[in-house]
Amino acid sequence: MTVLRRNVLKSLAVASASLPLAAPALAQGAPKVTWKLTSSFPKSLDLIYGAALSLAQRVHEASDGQFVIEVHPPGEIASALDALDAVKSGKADLGHTTLAYYWGKDPAFAFGTGVPFGMNARLTNSWFYEGGGNEAINEFLGDYGVTALPLGNTGAQMGGWFRRQVKTAADFKGLKVRSGGFTGTLFKALGAIPDATPMAAMPAALKSGALDAVEFVSPYDDEKLSIAKVAPYYYYPGWWQGSSAQHLVVNLAQWNALPKAYRAMLTSAAAEVNGQVLALYDARNPAALRRLVASGSNLQGFSADITEAAYKAAQEIFTQASKSNAKFSKLHENYTAFRNDGYLWWQVCEYTYDNFIIRQRAREAI
Amino acid sequence: MTVLRRNVLKSLAVASASLPLAAPALAQGAPKVTWKLTSSFPKSLDLIYGAALSLAQRVHEASDGQFVIEVHPPGEIASALDALDAVKSGKADLGHTTLAYYWGKDPAFAFGTGVPFGMNARLTNSWFYEGGGNEAINEFLGDYGVTALPLGNTGAQMGGWFRRQVKTAADFKGLKVRSGGFTGTLFKALGAIPDATPMAAMPAALKSGALDAVEFVSPYDDEKLSIAKVAPYYYYPGWWQGSSAQHLVVNLAQWNALPKAYRAMLTSAAAEVNGQVLALYDARNPAALRRLVASGSNLQGFSADITEAAYKAAQEIFTQASKSNAKFSKLHENYTAFRNDGYLWWQVCEYTYDNFIIRQRAREAI
Repeated sequence: MTVLRRNVLKSLAVASASLPLAAPALAQGAPKVTWKLTSSFPKSLDLIYGAALSLAQRVHEASDGQFVIEVHPPGEIASALDALDAVKSGKADLGHTTLAYYWGKDPAFAFGTGVPFGMNARLTNSWFYEGGGNEAINEFLGDYGVTALPLGNTGAQMGGWFRRQVKTAADFKGLKVRSGGFTGTLFKALGAIPDATPMAAMPAALKSGALDAVEFVSPYDDEKLSIAKVAPYYYYPGWWQGSSAQHLVVNLAQWNALPKAYRAMLTSAAAEVNGQVLALYDARNPAALRRLVASGSNLQGFSADITEAAYKAAQEIFTQASKSNAKFSKLHENYTAFRNDGYLWWQVCEYTYDNFIIRQRAREAI
Repeated sequence: MTVLRRNVLKSLAVASASLPLAAPALAQGAPKVTWKLTSSFPKSLDLIYGAALSLAQRVHEASDGQFVIEVHPPGEIASALDALDAVKSGKADLGHTTLAYYWGKDPAFAFGTGVPFGMNARLTNSWFYEGGGNEAINEFLGDYGVTALPLGNTGAQMGGWFRRQVKTAADFKGLKVRSGGFTGTLFKALGAIPDATPMAAMPAALKSGALDAVEFVSPYDDEKLSIAKVAPYYYYPGWWQGSSAQHLVVNLAQWNALPKAYRAMLTSAAAEVNGQVLALYDARNPAALRRLVASGSNLQGFSADITEAAYKAAQEIFTQASKSNAKFSKLHENYTAFRNDGYLWWQVCEYTYDNFIIRQRAREAI
């Protein structure tokens, strides 16, 4: 009998000695693995923060309690914007984050999340899972010592809250808009002033005029900002992202050392929860939108003048960034090719179908 | 030491005696479970048939090979339309099927799959997972001795292939259209003649005029029919289903006896694969559509006259079925309330976003 075999038997004996009467099915031979996850999302964003909790619950169930993921909100292990570095350094094993937060390290991170005039959530998922997107993102992330799995998408986002109406692209000049990353850069190209006022300070800043507008998420989360009274013009859609994806980043060394069965559980649970987050936003946004409109929010679509100017400005940013950054260029080409193909099919079938339902709704007020 | 404890130790000893050197992590204490799955889908529909294979692979990995699902195509255990009965009777433990196939048992089955002018795929998933849809469907399925998990969605479907153009609802009168279930009933209400010509016989039937039109899936699958030459008018969208979902049906007694960890693996893998199928269709349809158009298929949108007449006819069927069938009525109310709310939000944000991208595509031919 080899040493390995003896050790396995010994650990089995130890495990079985403490077996409860209703022995869990998988626990005896499965190693205990406890991983720490640092989330970039505050608990108040309960649908996104909750994604990490759902993930932890699922792998706990599937491993009979042997694979444990401890979920920490920002500030306990790392701040919201330090999740990637914390996972790279091993301070955390997992991070739940928005890759676009790391735009400052490299603008190419944005393709993990969503870019101006990019793909809607369903096409993004198709790119991630079946169009080479996950592979392309993970090739890029290799330099950061992590691998990533999609973990949530909010869908198309609202354009956010404005103190006064914006009718043409010229109305963006001098506008102080809470935004960052690619979005901030795009607003700046339109003449606006990106601003980083923290969430809690927004209502006062909007009231005083220190801030003119705030872009955030969609009705269910936006409602929590309580800024409808001071910035009543509620614009749609957020053209700076066709959808907004979050990722689970995993320390690469830990990932490689993880038992194969646990890797399968984690991959499967992440894909499950990725769909769950979008399903939750789709289920919760309608009632929140109704409440917001009922309490006086003034729904406004962005004009063609604005979206067209923004589109042009975005293309210019893509072109410039591609010239100076080979990684950005590679991801941009990969992403854009899939987007163009994806919308070819989308406009034939999904869009015309939705179009009929929406026209019918308007006619019947259903 | 109780008998139970002794038996557990004995089975552990047996398991460990046959341990290979590289012992799988979870196998020692995990019971071997081998389940048979009967698929309603031919292997030629590789994306849908493949969903069951992906599911089997994932639970195999997550259980270290202890939970095995054997996938059987139609005809080995049960025919395509007998999957539900085979699972109910225990001939199979699992079935991968389209609930709408069982329209003949009860029209209420249709809500598991998709109904005329119903929800698109993303809203359907939101209803299933976060809007009470899965619970409502499983309450209904309790009478059939099974429980079900969503397992795949093709998205919006094409309207299918027509020998000649249909310009108004009147053009449906006398049209022999290959279709069944709710779709067949709706075509009949428009004056058409539903027909059940099998797949292989379609080209000849269309050529001879024994058949006028065929509704099937979307470009990637439709291409396999090889009927573009004999029925060149390729219509969109399939208004008889906003999307088409498939389900994994599980024998209820087997489900209840399954170890909790395996139930978690199966639930998680089913949700993962549910998203995967849609991602695959979205990734494969664009190139297939291009090939079909390049080889002479004539893309045609259904006219407003047709969709409006069909909408009216569908509402009449919903109303009549609800009057005579309490289960249908309950599912219809549940489904429709979610659909109406879902599209309220969809039309504000997702639709206007897609609308801009599609207009921009047309302008730039991107």
